[in-house]
Amino acid sequence: MSIHNHIASTKTVRSATILTPPQKPEHPLTSRSYKATQTVVDINGVAVGGKDIAVMAGPCSIESPDQILRIAHEIKAAGATILRGGAFKPRTSPYDFQGLGEQGLIYLKAASIEIGLPTITEVIDVQDVELIIEYADCIQIGSRNMQNYPLLREVGKIRKPVLLKRGFSATYNEFLLAAEYIMAGGNDQVILCERGIRGISTDLRFTLDLNAVPYLKERTHLPVIVDPSHGTGTASIVPAMSRAAVACGADGLIIEAHYSPTESISDASQTISTATLAQVMKDLAKVASAIGRKVTLPK
Amino acid sequence: MSIHNHIASTKTVRSATILTPPQKPEHPLTSRSYKATQTVVDINGVAVGGKDIAVMAGPCSIESPDQILRIAHEIKAAGATILRGGAFKPRTSPYDFQGLGEQGLIYLKAASIEIGLPTITEVIDVQDVELIIEYADCIQIGSRNMQNYPLLREVGKIRKPVLLKRGFSATYNEFLLAAEYIMAGGNDQVILCERGIRGISTDLRFTLDLNAVPYLKERTHLPVIVDPSHGTGTASIVPAMSRAAVACGADGLIIEAHYSPTESISDASQTISTATLAQVMKDLAKVASAIGRKVTLPK
Amino acid sequence: MSIHNHIASTKTVRSATILTPPQKPEHPLTSRSYKATQTVVDINGVAVGGKDIAVMAGPCSIESPDQILRIAHEIKAAGATILRGGAFKPRTSPYDFQGLGEQGLIYLKAASIEIGLPTITEVIDVQDVELIIEYADCIQIGSRNMQNYPLLREVGKIRKPVLLKRGFSATYNEFLLAAEYIMAGGNDQVILCERGIRGISTDLRFTLDLNAVPYLKERTHLPVIVDPSHGTGTASIVPAMSRAAVACGADGLIIEAHYSPTESISDASQTISTATLAQVMKDLAKVASAIGRKVTLPK
Amino acid sequence: MSIHNHIASTKTVRSATILTPPQKPEHPLTSRSYKATQTVVDINGVAVGGKDIAVMAGPCSIESPDQILRIAHEIKAAGATILRGGAFKPRTSPYDFQGLGEQGLIYLKAASIEIGLPTITEVIDVQDVELIIEYADCIQIGSRNMQNYPLLREVGKIRKPVLLKRGFSATYNEFLLAAEYIMAGGNDQVILCERGIRGISTDLRFTLDLNAVPYLKERTHLPVIVDPSHGTGTASIVPAMSRAAVACGADGLIIEAHYSPTESISDASQTISTATLAQVMKDLAKVASAIGRKVTLPK
Repeated sequence: MSIHNHIASTKTVRSATILTPPQKPEHPLTSRSYKATQTVVDINGVAVGGKDIAVMAGPCSIESPDQILRIAHEIKAAGATILRGGAFKPRTSPYDFQGLGEQGLIYLKAASIEIGLPTITEVIDVQDVELIIEYADCIQIGSRNMQNYPLLREVGKIRKPVLLKRGFSATYNEFLLAAEYIMAGGNDQVILCERGIRGISTDLRFTLDLNAVPYLKERTHLPVIVDPSHGTGTASIVPAMSRAAVACGADGLIIEAHYSPTESISDASQTISTATLAQVMKDLAKVASAIGRKVTLPK
Repeated sequence: MSIHNHIASTKTVRSATILTPPQKPEHPLTSRSYKATQTVVDINGVAVGGKDIAVMAGPCSIESPDQILRIAHEIKAAGATILRGGAFKPRTSPYDFQGLGEQGLIYLKAASIEIGLPTITEVIDVQDVELIIEYADCIQIGSRNMQNYPLLREVGKIRKPVLLKRGFSATYNEFLLAAEYIMAGGNDQVILCERGIRGISTDLRFTLDLNAVPYLKERTHLPVIVDPSHGTGTASIVPAMSRAAVACGADGLIIEAHYSPTESISDASQTISTATLAQVMKDLAKVASAIGRKVTLPK
Repeated sequence: MSIHNHIASTKTVRSATILTPPQKPEHPLTSRSYKATQTVVDINGVAVGGKDIAVMAGPCSIESPDQILRIAHEIKAAGATILRGGAFKPRTSPYDFQGLGEQGLIYLKAASIEIGLPTITEVIDVQDVELIIEYADCIQIGSRNMQNYPLLREVGKIRKPVLLKRGFSATYNEFLLAAEYIMAGGNDQVILCERGIRGISTDLRFTLDLNAVPYLKERTHLPVIVDPSHGTGTASIVPAMSRAAVACGADGLIIEAHYSPTESISDASQTISTATLAQVMKDLAKVASAIGRKVTLPK
Repeated sequence: MSIHNHIASTKTVRSATILTPPQKPEHPLTSRSYKATQTVVDINGVAVGGKDIAVMAGPCSIESPDQILRIAHEIKAAGATILRGGAFKPRTSPYDFQGLGEQGLIYLKAASIEIGLPTITEVIDVQDVELIIEYADCIQIGSRNMQNYPLLREVGKIRKPVLLKRGFSATYNEFLLAAEYIMAGGNDQVILCERGIRGISTDLRFTLDLNAVPYLKERTHLPVIVDPSHGTGTASIVPAMSRAAVACGADGLIIEAHYSPTESISDASQTISTATLAQVMKDLAKVASAIGRKVTLPK
């Protein structure tokens, strides 16, 4: 049988998806040359990319209804305006705690309604996108999935905000092109998040690369926020790096905070206490004001 | 409504998947302490991990039936024993060529049957796993997906060989734990592939890290192969690095080869000609023999 | 002749220098456990490490008397308080401009006296230390020489301030131990300078690592300043990274500035204009104030 | 007093040294376009860069006359042809053992004469160059000093072989330009040595970058050797990486070896035993033969 017999086929075959480029491909959708005005993403009433600095805070993992409720209460009192918490966790080892799954989302949603804060949580499976946006107001793509193209395409189809974290060793251009996958699908509510890169240093778990902030903001209209918790892996320098992030132009922060960091199931070494967060927020308010931005503290 | 009302729910919720660890968790499934004997993976009649060095070769992308057929013919004549070719391509930009999709797989399968070579191709979408193993003999998880846990879990359920490439900046331990996700699902036919890391060098696209070969082989019973094409991004040093890979203990190689590299749609700069491949195979036969391994050249 | 005949020798031999450790070697001289109070280094009347943020500015290379004089005038008007300028330049290629040598130092000293600013300049040769401190108020050890131990020992013998730049890929601990070489020689007027590391990014020439600032300041009593010019290689993000450096606790900055950056013989792409510097200083004054530090602007 | 008074000076000033470029600056002295034939460096009768693979071996530090004598004897019996040993050691901490200094050189020379092996040892101080070449046949510039330009210039003036090690994060081009400093001074007996780079991996102390070997050999006529001991920091993989180095074209190796590695004052974890070295030499002989090179083993 010749090769042509093998190839002859009448059935419909599955194509690789190619997304339509914008009219001027030299100005991709993420670029300032495509859209000059700053994009402001609305997370259920909280703006990211406007004058106000948006601070997302919460535990690494949602562990119980009482844990997430208490943290929600305390981060709101500190001045944070969005509640973070992981329900489906990407873990390096298959034998580590993988999160509470949907049950965690239920606890997150309950705390959100009770305390009055919009929420963000991570998706790691393309099949969970619909599930997660039932419960959360913003969906996060983590560093390990920055180039998971089916997942990027899937969140490109929804009409809810997406927080895209930079890969562990992604260049700025690769980061922008990952966001391009989402925008090319029609979802323009994308927030970029610098979260630390692998580097030469072994002193910290990662090297938070704040250079990304002014570099990206020159090139893209999308909001850029910073994760100093994962970005450094070191709670004691999170306050200083949070101030620096705001000073160099970040539109927001996402910070791991817990009433008792050492009790966290995961990421204890990089989690600050909610008491520390309250002090950080006061400091951020001053720094924001110094550069013409704003952090609104609770009365 | 109190938080407890929100949480009360009778419907079945979706859990995060937790895989069962081996009986002695300090000896994970990938470790030599769990299994002392070397694993030999059988790719439709070609052994990877035995005395013979297995060489996989072929184009970056399958472009047409004639292209893949001619390359299959020439790499077999050169001495390679497994045909590689991409049908679903993970591309940094959404506007770049994404591969021929299933049509490409049909061409690959046809060339495989015509020439008599088993095949390997990449999967990027968890939903394509079943489709791809209909056509190919070994399924590849690329670097971008080394920590795409749903995809690792999915190929953990099948009973076909899986080639797992190291992430751009993954540590050796993270690499082994990614393989652990596959093995914990019950699939023990896993081949590890070193393919270059992001490093300080800007002279080459990536830094092929051959240290991974002896380091991993000390620790794991799984076969370890090397991709000098992606690993260096530079065709002119692929022959030398192929020899080095065999000399330090690699069980095989995966090399991009084309009858006319400059005609390739993608990866032209790192693709060697099939004529060069023929010379590389002769050199590998000598190096393999020098260290007690074997490359069988066609008569 | 036996080996013992060769070894027998009455002449005095040259020993390798071993420096005496502090009384408690677990608390090296650079550590906060050795000295709890913050060290303030006095550069001819300008304090580095106190409440005031010290800004050093000037050209990469001293090119002519008029160039350095005009720049000195303009950076002082902008609010900088220390004049930098290179006379002996470490250049990657032996055929590139190596600086004006002592003639450059003469121009630097003249501008210093005329305008009334203390100065800093780099030493690259152990034999030039005496020469340089005749002309300049602070002596700089560049990144390439962070582990040039004879040079560190030599500046350990003098009693003038030393600015020590972090090596391109030095860990924080190696950086502190390099400073230890200087302090063990008896010179406690050492300023540490973060200046960017080699990293995975190819978008910028270096990755300015601001994490070093809070990390080092937790551990050492020495002042820590930041070089955003070399640290990024990119003039457009120097203002943002300068603000960030102050926000996370840097005691000062060293910035390449020129009245006309494109006219610079070297480092044009990372040099900001003196006009930009004036704006940067105003912004720094606000950020400094927000965190309880101070930048005194000229009336 | 005006600036012109300060500048006016009749005394002779010290210039920065500028080296004369070759007639065609686009073909620097290190390039194959400047000199097509392979350079063979003669270390007191042992050729580096010819058909024979040159293996340098010995302890990290010279510790006593008996230690270096016994090691010299054993590495010669194993087949190595050049004796290495450190007398002036560049140590990260000023309080660590810094080598025996000239006394160590005396022991090295004695062992050299007794056993009949040429020697190599490191220089770290520009003032020691004359001293060291009295005792040793080849002078080594270590990684920390790859861009110590006064030291490069100094060894450019002598007429003895120089081994130049790549900096921890030097690009290939920077490495070649460092060699250019030496050659521009008139010394064309330069050997390049790859010795591992700082990278993303924390599993090994350094990432031995064998890609440097074929890359450099394409571009330069200078011999290129490899240091798998410092390059990996891990004795157990030194044999495999030594074979790989030869397989990809290295002209030689420099290996830390000791009759009892755990007794070494420094670098114990990366030092192989002389017994292991003997086996490595036999394996290298086979690999060298496989690629048309040669290792001559003692009868």
